[in-house]
Amino acid sequence: MPSPSSKGWLIPIGGKLTDASILARFIELCGSSNPVIAIIPTASEESDMGTWYEKQFAKHGVTNARALNLRRRSDCDDQDWTSRLADADGVFITGGNQLRLTTIIGGTPAAHLLRDRFLAGMPVAGTSAGAAVMSAHMIAGGDEGPTPRAGMVTLAPGFGLAPEIIIDQHFRQRDRLGRLLTALSYNPAMLGLGVDEDTAAFISPDDEIDVMGSSAVTVIDTRDVEFSSMHDAEPHDTITLLGIRMHQLAEGAGFNLRTRKAHGSSVVSPHPDHAR
Amino acid sequence: MPSPSSKGWLIPIGGKLTDASILARFIELCGSSNPVIAIIPTASEESDMGTWYEKQFAKHGVTNARALNLRRRSDCDDQDWTSRLADADGVFITGGNQLRLTTIIGGTPAAHLLRDRFLAGMPVAGTSAGAAVMSAHMIAGGDEGPTPRAGMVTLAPGFGLAPEIIIDQHFRQRDRLGRLLTALSYNPAMLGLGVDEDTAAFISPDDEIDVMGSSAVTVIDTRDVEFSSMHDAEPHDTITLLGIRMHQLAEGAGFNLRTRKAHGSSVVSPHPDHAR
Repeated sequence: MPSPSSKGWLIPIGGKLTDASILARFIELCGSSNPVIAIIPTASEESDMGTWYEKQFAKHGVTNARALNLRRRSDCDDQDWTSRLADADGVFITGGNQLRLTTIIGGTPAAHLLRDRFLAGMPVAGTSAGAAVMSAHMIAGGDEGPTPRAGMVTLAPGFGLAPEIIIDQHFRQRDRLGRLLTALSYNPAMLGLGVDEDTAAFISPDDEIDVMGSSAVTVIDTRDVEFSSMHDAEPHDTITLLGIRMHQLAEGAGFNLRTRKAHGSSVVSPHPDHAR
Repeated sequence: MPSPSSKGWLIPIGGKLTDASILARFIELCGSSNPVIAIIPTASEESDMGTWYEKQFAKHGVTNARALNLRRRSDCDDQDWTSRLADADGVFITGGNQLRLTTIIGGTPAAHLLRDRFLAGMPVAGTSAGAAVMSAHMIAGGDEGPTPRAGMVTLAPGFGLAPEIIIDQHFRQRDRLGRLLTALSYNPAMLGLGVDEDTAAFISPDDEIDVMGSSAVTVIDTRDVEFSSMHDAEPHDTITLLGIRMHQLAEGAGFNLRTRKAHGSSVVSPHPDHAR
């Protein structure tokens, strides 16, 4: 088992990506100006989703970005696709429905390879559903609203690239604070990361998060929670959760997952070409 | 990180334990005839649950079984209790409500210590809620019935001692096949273990399961599932799940978690004194 610091960068993006510098930085983290990028479009039912992202990467000069056509479970041990995954310098997971990712890819050779390559250092970025699926405890769906209530979130096993983080996306735009707090109220061992649209959390191999993009990342740290009423709650009951620590991180701000300390400005420059 | 085979025995019990040989074998696995056993009664709201189990262990000649009075989160970094956990030869987790275990102990020093000690070789047994909480993806609740339907199960982060197994309990008696299949339909990467009352799955450090007790353990292996409709399902929709492999294991039968092969009779004698 590799030590934690040999794993790759993990880059959850909150959906509706327009900030070109986020994709530029992901490409750079893949290790060359023209890296081999495997696009996983499985979350989407739109057949041209993969092609669309191939074009986005081409605009950045990446000619080796290719969509893996994983549409059913039997595709996921097809050697044509798994060898492309094995040869990739980075993986990008598109949006759609995160349950398509887990029901179609979960437990297959492609899922094991993705995890092994990530643990060995390959960067993985994903937007919307592609961000949610990075969690071990994936938010599969839920209700809108800021107040946590029993039953307002559905958790399911995700790809587990971030075992202790529950990642939510379209966070501010779809009013998802309540469902993320509900997810955390089951077991305060987890950390919540609510990623807004057009915004990314860059999580380094050393578990240092820094934020890029036009909106914010919300960190919800329940490590010091004193009480959660979830064990007493009936369906739809409002949940009591005492001692939440929360950080709102705009671009340049960050959070260390090991020390659980936040900072207001970059400790490392997020991107050399990035001035805004 | 210790290698997988240095971890301890894990013994989920399906509730309503009357078979004395199950407790006798757990005691033996703790390494002496009178081991130090830490009882975690937190799942139960009954204040005498811990004392009741102290007496059960005393009937087996164990005079060093002591309940840890973990009733609120602030108890879980109390050095009196954590030092007892640190000194224990084995841990027994009682029944009750598994969400009390995760909301009160989850993420605290006691939870980390329990996991670290287990990974270093200490056996952990648990009955009912104490079995469910061993999963990473814990069944927190759900509906009865044999047919999987969307929304009939609630998953929450458990203690994660068995990261890839979803453990259900009171399995046959409370008709829980449907909710376990629903849990597995989200992501076929998981393996389902339905443990009946008065029955235990002894999971060795080498991931070999053998069964003891008066009823059965149901293994549901979804590794070769060809299709799950969960990504298309609306609430209450019946789920299609194709290619499930299932084993019914009575006492003496077993299953290897690595090879995913079942066998009908013991490859190792479950207990030298156990003849029935």
